[in-house]
Amino acid sequence: MKTILVIGAGRSTSYLIKYLLDNAAKEQWMVRVGDMSLELASQKVSNHPCAHAFTFDVNNEDQRIQEITQADIVISMLPATMHMQVAKACLHFKKHLVTASYISNEMRTLHDEAKQAGVILLNECGLDPGIDHASAMKVIDKIHHEQGELTLFKSYCGGLIAPESNDNPWGYKFSWNPKNVVLAGQGTSKYIENGKYKYIPYNRLFIQTEKIQTKINNTILNLEAYANRDSLSYRTTYNIPNIATMLRGTLRFEGYCKAWNVFVKLGLTDDNCMIEPINGLTYKQLIDSYLPLKSNITKENLFAFMGDDMDDETFSKIEWLGILSNKEVNFNKYNQKAVSVAQLLLDLLEEKWLLQNTDKDMVVMQHHFEYVNKEKHAKKIISSLLVKGMDQTYTAMAKTVGLPLAIATKLILQEKIKARGVLLPTIEEIYLPLLAELETFDICFEEQEQLL
Amino acid sequence: MKTILVIGAGRSTSYLIKYLLDNAAKEQWMVRVGDMSLELASQKVSNHPCAHAFTFDVNNEDQRIQEITQADIVISMLPATMHMQVAKACLHFKKHLVTASYISNEMRTLHDEAKQAGVILLNECGLDPGIDHASAMKVIDKIHHEQGELTLFKSYCGGLIAPESNDNPWGYKFSWNPKNVVLAGQGTSKYIENGKYKYIPYNRLFIQTEKIQTKINNTILNLEAYANRDSLSYRTTYNIPNIATMLRGTLRFEGYCKAWNVFVKLGLTDDNCMIEPINGLTYKQLIDSYLPLKSNITKENLFAFMGDDMDDETFSKIEWLGILSNKEVNFNKYNQKAVSVAQLLLDLLEEKWLLQNTDKDMVVMQHHFEYVNKEKHAKKIISSLLVKGMDQTYTAMAKTVGLPLAIATKLILQEKIKARGVLLPTIEEIYLPLLAELETFDICFEEQEQLL
Repeated sequence: MKTILVIGAGRSTSYLIKYLLDNAAKEQWMVRVGDMSLELASQKVSNHPCAHAFTFDVNNEDQRIQEITQADIVISMLPATMHMQVAKACLHFKKHLVTASYISNEMRTLHDEAKQAGVILLNECGLDPGIDHASAMKVIDKIHHEQGELTLFKSYCGGLIAPESNDNPWGYKFSWNPKNVVLAGQGTSKYIENGKYKYIPYNRLFIQTEKIQTKINNTILNLEAYANRDSLSYRTTYNIPNIATMLRGTLRFEGYCKAWNVFVKLGLTDDNCMIEPINGLTYKQLIDSYLPLKSNITKENLFAFMGDDMDDETFSKIEWLGILSNKEVNFNKYNQKAVSVAQLLLDLLEEKWLLQNTDKDMVVMQHHFEYVNKEKHAKKIISSLLVKGMDQTYTAMAKTVGLPLAIATKLILQEKIKARGVLLPTIEEIYLPLLAELETFDICFEEQEQLL
Repeated sequence: MKTILVIGAGRSTSYLIKYLLDNAAKEQWMVRVGDMSLELASQKVSNHPCAHAFTFDVNNEDQRIQEITQADIVISMLPATMHMQVAKACLHFKKHLVTASYISNEMRTLHDEAKQAGVILLNECGLDPGIDHASAMKVIDKIHHEQGELTLFKSYCGGLIAPESNDNPWGYKFSWNPKNVVLAGQGTSKYIENGKYKYIPYNRLFIQTEKIQTKINNTILNLEAYANRDSLSYRTTYNIPNIATMLRGTLRFEGYCKAWNVFVKLGLTDDNCMIEPINGLTYKQLIDSYLPLKSNITKENLFAFMGDDMDDETFSKIEWLGILSNKEVNFNKYNQKAVSVAQLLLDLLEEKWLLQNTDKDMVVMQHHFEYVNKEKHAKKIISSLLVKGMDQTYTAMAKTVGLPLAIATKLILQEKIKARGVLLPTIEEIYLPLLAELETFDICFEEQEQLL
């Protein structure tokens, strides 16, 4: 009997926990699911004989140690900043750990110690990061194995709404952490293009986008991508240090970014700008406060303010959110305390971009590889993935984040992974069986190859 | 004999230490000046019999405690983030502390304890913050005393270059911490105008400026102001909680802000965007990396990129910095390690905006008060200060930052301040003698009053 401890039972865990329960009897697993909310944890395990749901507070040191000591492996679905205390306890008690979060520099420092202790701390094993690494490395390793040389690698991913459930002008509903969507891209994004570093500051990230018109699984998609913060560090991770062009981007339906840029330019995405509660304050009044004009916000004023970066279609997206009506800001939710303007924007979006019961979300991933093969022919591979969700709970996002975590957990418990230390799913012994099993769940990449 | 401990002997301490030494014999002071650099500390005290220069490392706890225990008062010229450890030691050993830095929330928490211990922790006692508070409160208290009601308070301050030393197209040279100039304004600036909160995000802070054309001490000045981060919290500090219009702004010569906005839009002021060392990298190439175009930076490209926010005068400022020439970035200064783009911009500016030996800097401050007096007449007061420096060392900046610190120190040692706790120079028993003595150093406000 092996014990799996799952910490956190939120939005992204439906498929993860389902997979663990579906395999529990056969694999002889006991699945312990702990969350701050007992209700959330109980919902997910629904009286399964091999599972136990309980209230869990990671900051309770006694409980943290007790739970980790009795587990064989820990899956942490906590926010990225909270993984370290779990990782340190895992290392201390020699337990494996799996997360879907970006590896932090602090986590990296545990590598040697974990290796020596024979422990696996596997990070970035969800969708993006996760499936992106696995699927990219499979192609990159094959090209290298055949003595080809990569010249371009662009990788795009987006959690979107499926066309059949797309009933709003933004073509967007939340399928993962909404706050991350509101704060996305702050800072400067870096990539390399034809051997030249390129930097895009936040103030123009959502207007310097790239159009991606493509067809995946017979679905025609008119998408656009904005650059991720960090494309450069993956040159080392992917073993392509001298590649001339490397970009990682986030996908949205065409037009989303231009409309989002209105919020960026207004200043509504600042999570440090605190708004004091005002009785009866409307969103319209709040936005007036961000316009340089003394007059109130109107269509004309907003067009004048945005200049070339506004058009009727963009305006219709803004208007659809109800911002120009007299919708009131809800300060009661915050006990009439000051709250950031980004949070107030999020409150509005969470209502309007709510994934409804029967809505299907959609995950799209696409890699572009250009390389010169051994015979000096320039070639291009486009590798694409499209996954649709079932409903509000069994989303494509939960599936593509949860299944890699679950499968990696199984591989580790079956002792099929020999490597030890702080790992990513970029090594063959992880990505090959991972991608193979994902295919049985219809998570399949479609590959096109052509001469350039 | 009283001992004054001065921590830090940098750019802003020339007048401070001179004042302390000039008064040392008469007041029976021993002035101990500690700095990381013994040379810097020794230069400032130049063998004065009542002074001692020494190497001081505030992070050396033993030394910190030893120095503070033998002092009667401490003047901390450290960066704002380092005051707390000094403040806590001062409190523990019941010693007074004076700083020119913005009061931190952490510092505020010491108030009750300091009050009880009979200790003064006086903050914001330099120029801005400092003289601004003192001079504003003198007028505000007078209006309140005469039962008038303030309706508008705008306060502007800038460390500039005197017209006679202004030999560059920016009208700017560094007279205080250059890094603060490069990073100024990041986040969202808040103020209130006619009862309506206004917010300006960084991306348009330097284009949403206000023109200030004025004449002070017979000098005609064409200035502009950008809004400071925080104008709102001073409503409480100044006892004007319900004022309809309140703004604090930073002054520059006309045209500076529009040119600075080019750097903001390019993305060159981000202190978190690290640039990897590249052999022979020129500033031109670095800026190419920030332009969305594939082509190199040229006058035409920069005009196209900036759109309405560019003109010939603005371009001439950018060009004068040598950015369009093949000037190389100096990575040797950073041991060939990655360095932020803001730091690289600063390196260039420090060369070009260096205050020369005989250059005179200039400090300008102007307050606008509008109020309704007891007889219901609307009135306006404009209170203005202009101070010119002597040279590169005895700057107007060092004078207006250092003398308030020095005078406050004297007032405290003479036991003329009765208040205890965490204080600002906003109370009468500080600002009245402070402003009076500043006048003897030709730091005098010129006041104009008119009916509205």
